[in-house]
Amino acid sequence: MADTSTKNGRGATNGQPADRARVWGGIDLGGTKIEAVVVDARGEVLGRARHPTPAKGGPGEVVKELYGALGEAAQTAGIEPAKLAGVGVGAAGAVDANSGTLAHTSNVAGGWDAPYPLASDLGDLVGGSKVVLGNDVQVAVAAEYKLGAGRNYRSVLGVWWGTGVGGGLVLNGVPWRGQGSAGEIGHMVVKPNGARCGCGRNGCLEAYAGRACMESKARAAAKKGEKTLLFDIMREKKRTRLSSGVWARALKDKDPLATRLIDRAIEMLGTTIASVINLLDVEAIVLGGGLGSRLGPLYMGRIQDAMHPHLFITERKPAMHIAELGDLSGAIGAALLAGPQM
Amino acid sequence: MADTSTKNGRGATNGQPADRARVWGGIDLGGTKIEAVVVDARGEVLGRARHPTPAKGGPGEVVKELYGALGEAAQTAGIEPAKLAGVGVGAAGAVDANSGTLAHTSNVAGGWDAPYPLASDLGDLVGGSKVVLGNDVQVAVAAEYKLGAGRNYRSVLGVWWGTGVGGGLVLNGVPWRGQGSAGEIGHMVVKPNGARCGCGRNGCLEAYAGRACMESKARAAAKKGEKTLLFDIMREKKRTRLSSGVWARALKDKDPLATRLIDRAIEMLGTTIASVINLLDVEAIVLGGGLGSRLGPLYMGRIQDAMHPHLFITERKPAMHIAELGDLSGAIGAALLAGPQM
Repeated sequence: MADTSTKNGRGATNGQPADRARVWGGIDLGGTKIEAVVVDARGEVLGRARHPTPAKGGPGEVVKELYGALGEAAQTAGIEPAKLAGVGVGAAGAVDANSGTLAHTSNVAGGWDAPYPLASDLGDLVGGSKVVLGNDVQVAVAAEYKLGAGRNYRSVLGVWWGTGVGGGLVLNGVPWRGQGSAGEIGHMVVKPNGARCGCGRNGCLEAYAGRACMESKARAAAKKGEKTLLFDIMREKKRTRLSSGVWARALKDKDPLATRLIDRAIEMLGTTIASVINLLDVEAIVLGGGLGSRLGPLYMGRIQDAMHPHLFITERKPAMHIAELGDLSGAIGAALLAGPQM
Repeated sequence: MADTSTKNGRGATNGQPADRARVWGGIDLGGTKIEAVVVDARGEVLGRARHPTPAKGGPGEVVKELYGALGEAAQTAGIEPAKLAGVGVGAAGAVDANSGTLAHTSNVAGGWDAPYPLASDLGDLVGGSKVVLGNDVQVAVAAEYKLGAGRNYRSVLGVWWGTGVGGGLVLNGVPWRGQGSAGEIGHMVVKPNGARCGCGRNGCLEAYAGRACMESKARAAAKKGEKTLLFDIMREKKRTRLSSGVWARALKDKDPLATRLIDRAIEMLGTTIASVINLLDVEAIVLGGGLGSRLGPLYMGRIQDAMHPHLFITERKPAMHIAELGDLSGAIGAALLAGPQM
């Protein structure tokens, strides 16, 4: 077996043939973009590519685009896709890892509801590599645990604060998936009979802290005549949604509506995270996602302040860190799902 | 090695010598009583004894009484305490399993705050057996997982509904203790800025569902002039506290105050359990504790009704069962902690 490792610990690099047994592909299927990487046994990124998620055409088009992004990443890494030891795909929606199907992909514009055999379809295109599916947030948290902000701990709660509020758990070194759907911290109830959530229920954390729900509240308030800079900033930034950057700017400008909604989000995040700590007593929290990455550095201390009054074990406050792998955490985590044991 | 097993699967019984390598002691240190058992490698109870918990005298008296109960259980099983392969103790309070100390035993009348070396003191009396400590609810849930209502599942949430609301987790066959203090479902926040809890915080599940907190509310309501049968039933039953039996009787008699408080407890239990399911996606819930055992058979369906509207994965409702090992779950679980691998 060829040894592709070099002194600095990196594997094969561009243009050099990579050893099939030791190179994996990872793809993060997001609502707007597809991130693909090829990594070595240490999780080092050897190649990467980003493609837009097809807005129409259904699962067939999405699979083609996943393959396109993977092929480009593989090319950069100097390997044929068919020679990858395995390929992982992280996606939002209902992932059935055993059957390799993905259903309820509501975040993908050209998405679908019924279970679609994504793993076998992509596997046919890739040829020879085994394709495995995982939940996008779960794999991102696993990547942070192995290679990022959680690497110094054995048990980690990942909180992905973005359009929704996702979660992932690593317990004693092993990702905890339950029966496949663990980690839905965003749908823990933080206030009985509380605010309406995008999921149709009431009082979920996501109803207060998810970007989509906060945007709904901001639009309703603006419609009622409440003054806010949020939508001016949105137009100025040529956006159609209140992106993390829009919120960050409005907060910087001390917009009262943005401040009030974010204050409430922080309070509810802190309260819910404290509940999870009381239940699981994990060592550390990793805060990721669009809002987590953007606002975390400034607001992490306030989330901790909101947690502390609710912690049952007061003398042992869990560590909190901002995710470190950025946009690639999902793709790297998906690749780790496919095989590299570290 | 002598084979102590017989055809019906039971180990050594009364009066017969038991094999040292295969017999363990377990003790449940409760607020009012100490339960001790001696079990074989299958968890079968070979001997048992119940002693009252000393109301004064501090840790020294408690250790003596633990030993007294253990000795009596061992005698019934026909073994010298010194010949036990190991002894486990389950206790409420702050257990440090590594150092073998117990602190903050607020539920024990003659209790103490500072860490006390319970394991080594009891070990000195027992002689030869290694004594290990565990949290009372965690070990009871582990016993239900191995031998009781959770035996058909790999991942279980135990909810111990009694004076307080305790919890225990078994995840993929392994008790999850976090850094030692996992399972505090009673101190998950079910209502921000909600009712005052015995722990001094606000809005904990226990503030609504714990028997002690419900009793405080009932006393306050009665003091304000609200009519209730609760305290008449208490006196009739010659109790000084609203025991599970008192609540059961008042509910049967349709006492409005008891009904209102229990309705609220059920609603909050269901809501919080649903939040845990959304986070952990375990297969089953085991409901134990004084109120859980007493009211569970009648009210379990209502707790499930309160859960269901909050479950994120609606097509997969977790199973719920009432604990099966009764008063002995804690003592058996403590014995399992000491060694028998099943």
